[in-house]
Amino acid sequence: MYDTYIILIMSRKISKDKIIKAAVSVFAEKGFDLATMDEIAKRSELSKGTIFLYFEKKDELIKQIAMLSIPYDVVEETLSGKYESAEEMLYDFGKKFMDKYKDSEMRSLLMMTIGNKRRYEVIKSKLKSVCMDKIDEFFKKVEELSGVEIPFTLRRSFFGALLCYLIWWEDNPLDPEEYVRQLSKTVLMSVRRERGDARS
Amino acid sequence: MYDTYIILIMSRKISKDKIIKAAVSVFAEKGFDLATMDEIAKRSELSKGTIFLYFEKKDELIKQIAMLSIPYDVVEETLSGKYESAEEMLYDFGKKFMDKYKDSEMRSLLMMTIGNKRRYEVIKSKLKSVCMDKIDEFFKKVEELSGVEIPFTLRRSFFGALLCYLIWWEDNPLDPEEYVRQLSKTVLMSVRRERGDARS
Repeated sequence: MYDTYIILIMSRKISKDKIIKAAVSVFAEKGFDLATMDEIAKRSELSKGTIFLYFEKKDELIKQIAMLSIPYDVVEETLSGKYESAEEMLYDFGKKFMDKYKDSEMRSLLMMTIGNKRRYEVIKSKLKSVCMDKIDEFFKKVEELSGVEIPFTLRRSFFGALLCYLIWWEDNPLDPEEYVRQLSKTVLMSVRRERGDARS
Repeated sequence: MYDTYIILIMSRKISKDKIIKAAVSVFAEKGFDLATMDEIAKRSELSKGTIFLYFEKKDELIKQIAMLSIPYDVVEETLSGKYESAEEMLYDFGKKFMDKYKDSEMRSLLMMTIGNKRRYEVIKSKLKSVCMDKIDEFFKKVEELSGVEIPFTLRRSFFGALLCYLIWWEDNPLDPEEYVRQLSKTVLMSVRRERGDARS
């Protein structure tokens, strides 16, 4: 009885993973609007009936994939990390960010999610909580480590520069790691100078 | 004869403007994929036949609107301007950028264009020429004015921060002008410090 239950749970998990994997690939290729549940069923090698057990409407699946595409996990992971310096923290965030989006499907999905946020309330609020509140929390920690205030525009600059890297992934003159390394330095340059000034 | 020709040209221009205006509003609302030529005809108050005189396929219209949505005009205008300082140039670019995208339809279309660039070769190359070559030219002028090199990551930071403002337009804690003012200062902060150091 117990075994049957475990098997049921496991097979459900496997089906759900299969659906999400297929949805990621179909959505990334066709866009949220042109993707069909038929195509997702076909690519997941599951019946449409099985898919509807987990996701009643395409909208439900869109929301799930949109959540997956935003850097929520990256911010959370960095927030729970231990860092010696602000630069180390920025660099580690950037590295994790690039690691998530080196996958071209994930990049496409993030762009789509941003472009579609007006149409999905849940996407909008989740994206807002990452890009506003969580990033706020993130920079509070960076400020603690650096000992100086980081202006709002500089916070945005850091995040915006990462986003720009994704848009031009293949055409960037620097590899992701070098870009993140230089970016962390550049963003903190003025801050570090201020500290140096204060100390001297 | 001459008059008839002028009238013909003018009425063509009026029709084309009407189509583009309608397409902007339909595309911004429904997205490139779900928008239909029927809807665009309806909103422009022209027949579908008239529309097909100017744009043979929806793809042609998508390209035209995509071109319109990117900040090409803003970069060009700033490049032809005369500035006393790097900060003034950055600020003026930012102000023109915000002016273009204070229109919410234009913001939606830009996000869509970025999200769809892989699917349209012409969009991709135009967007690349703005975001890479033109921005390069732009920063060369900024560097001439400031007298120091502006690192690649800092260039990206400036542009990325502007892009982030668009994504969160209504939720930004600063108004566009103040944001641009602070951003121009912040981005040049380290540069100006370096100059100060060199001079002192």
